[in-house]
Amino acid sequence: MNENKNKRSFWISTDWEQWPERERARTMNSLSGFKSANLVGTSDKHGLSNLSMVSSVVHLGSSPALLGMVLRPPGANNAHTYKNLISTGQCTYSHVNEAIFLKAHQCSARYPKEVSEFDAVGLTPWLPPGIDWQAPAVAEANIRMGLQLSEDIPLPNGCRFMVCALQWVELPTDACASDGYIAIDQAESLTISGLDGYHQTTSLGRLSYAKVDQPVQVITDRLKGWED
Amino acid sequence: MNENKNKRSFWISTDWEQWPERERARTMNSLSGFKSANLVGTSDKHGLSNLSMVSSVVHLGSSPALLGMVLRPPGANNAHTYKNLISTGQCTYSHVNEAIFLKAHQCSARYPKEVSEFDAVGLTPWLPPGIDWQAPAVAEANIRMGLQLSEDIPLPNGCRFMVCALQWVELPTDACASDGYIAIDQAESLTISGLDGYHQTTSLGRLSYAKVDQPVQVITDRLKGWED
Repeated sequence: MNENKNKRSFWISTDWEQWPERERARTMNSLSGFKSANLVGTSDKHGLSNLSMVSSVVHLGSSPALLGMVLRPPGANNAHTYKNLISTGQCTYSHVNEAIFLKAHQCSARYPKEVSEFDAVGLTPWLPPGIDWQAPAVAEANIRMGLQLSEDIPLPNGCRFMVCALQWVELPTDACASDGYIAIDQAESLTISGLDGYHQTTSLGRLSYAKVDQPVQVITDRLKGWED
Repeated sequence: MNENKNKRSFWISTDWEQWPERERARTMNSLSGFKSANLVGTSDKHGLSNLSMVSSVVHLGSSPALLGMVLRPPGANNAHTYKNLISTGQCTYSHVNEAIFLKAHQCSARYPKEVSEFDAVGLTPWLPPGIDWQAPAVAEANIRMGLQLSEDIPLPNGCRFMVCALQWVELPTDACASDGYIAIDQAESLTISGLDGYHQTTSLGRLSYAKVDQPVQVITDRLKGWED
C-alpha cells in the first residue's frame, strides 16, 4: 500500500532555496514538461568537431524558419558548442533515437577541447551532399538539420538564447505526412524529462485546428494529415 | 509494400520557401523535436481569466528557478496571455494530461476577450492556498506552478521570449524521486509533436551523470534516484 497515494506537495521559493543544489537542479529541470532531445554538432575553424547533448531546442517561427536553443553560461559543459557557434556561425541538430541515446548522453561528459565527442562516444560525422557546409551532423540519427546563427541573446541568469535560422533538413520520407506534419515518433525520436530521463512516445492522435463552437476532432492516420 | 522504406528527403531553404504556408508551418513546428504541453493561465486586472495552450515552455535555470516561454507576436492567438502577463506580471503553467488534452487543445480557438477559456472548454480555475495570488491554474492538471514575469525579450521575428521566475509548485508527492527528479510521466504529463500531435511516454530509464572514461549507467527505479 502506498501512503503517498493522492497526497500532494506544495513548495514556495523559500522551500527550494534551502535544498541541496543538485536536488534543486533535478526538480527545476523537470518542471517545464517534456523536452526535445538533440545532439548539437559544431566544428572550430580548424575543423575539430564537437557534439553536445541539448534538451532546450524550441520552435520559434516558420517564415523564416527559426529555432531557438538555451546554452549554459560560457565555462559550463557546453562551452565548446557556444565558442564554435559564435566563431563559425554554423551548427546542426540531430534528433536522438533509442539506438544512440546512451552515446548521446555520454557526450555531456567534460571531454577536453582537443577531443571530438564523435570519436569519444562512437558516433559518425555526417555532412550534407552538394552544398558548402562545415558543421557535422550525426549519421546514426534519423532526422538532422543544419542552422546558421542569427542572434545571440543574453539571458538574466547568464545563459544565452541562441536564435538559429534553418538552412537544410535531411529526414526519412516515410515520416512526412501529406499536410506537412512530420511523425517524429515514427522516426524514433525520443523525449527527455528532467536532467537524465529518456522516453519513447505513443501517439494519442493529431487534433484538428481548434475553432470556437466546434469540438476538436482526432485523426489516427497521422500521415494522411488534415486537408486545408 | 512501402516504396518509401529507407528513402530519405533533403530540403534546403529555397524548397520550403515555396511551400504553402500551413504546410510549412506544420513541418517547421515538427523539427525541434518533442515539446512540453502546458496550459498557461492568466487574468486581467479585473479578474477575467484566460487559458492558453503553449508548447514552448523551456527550462532556463535552477538558481534562481527560471522558465522561458515563446509567445507569438501580439495580435496572434495568444494575445490575451501576453497582455495579461505584461499587465499583472503573473502566470501559471499546468501540465496537460490525457484526461484534459482535448479541452486543452480547444483553448487555442479564438475566443473573444470577454470569454474565459476555463468556462468555454470546461476546466476549473485553481488558486494556491494561503498565499496572495491572482492568476488561475488548472484544477484538473496534476502538476501546476505559478510564475512572476522577469523579462520580456523581443525576438527577431516579432515573437517574444518571456522569462518567468518560479514562485510556487503543487504536484503529486508520489511523482517526486528521493534525489529531486520528478517523474512527470507518472503524473500523466503528455508531450507534443508539431502543431497538433499529442503523445504519452514510456520511460527508457534515467542515465547517470556522464563522466569521461566511465560508461553511463541506467536506473529503472526512477523514484529511488541517484545518490550524490
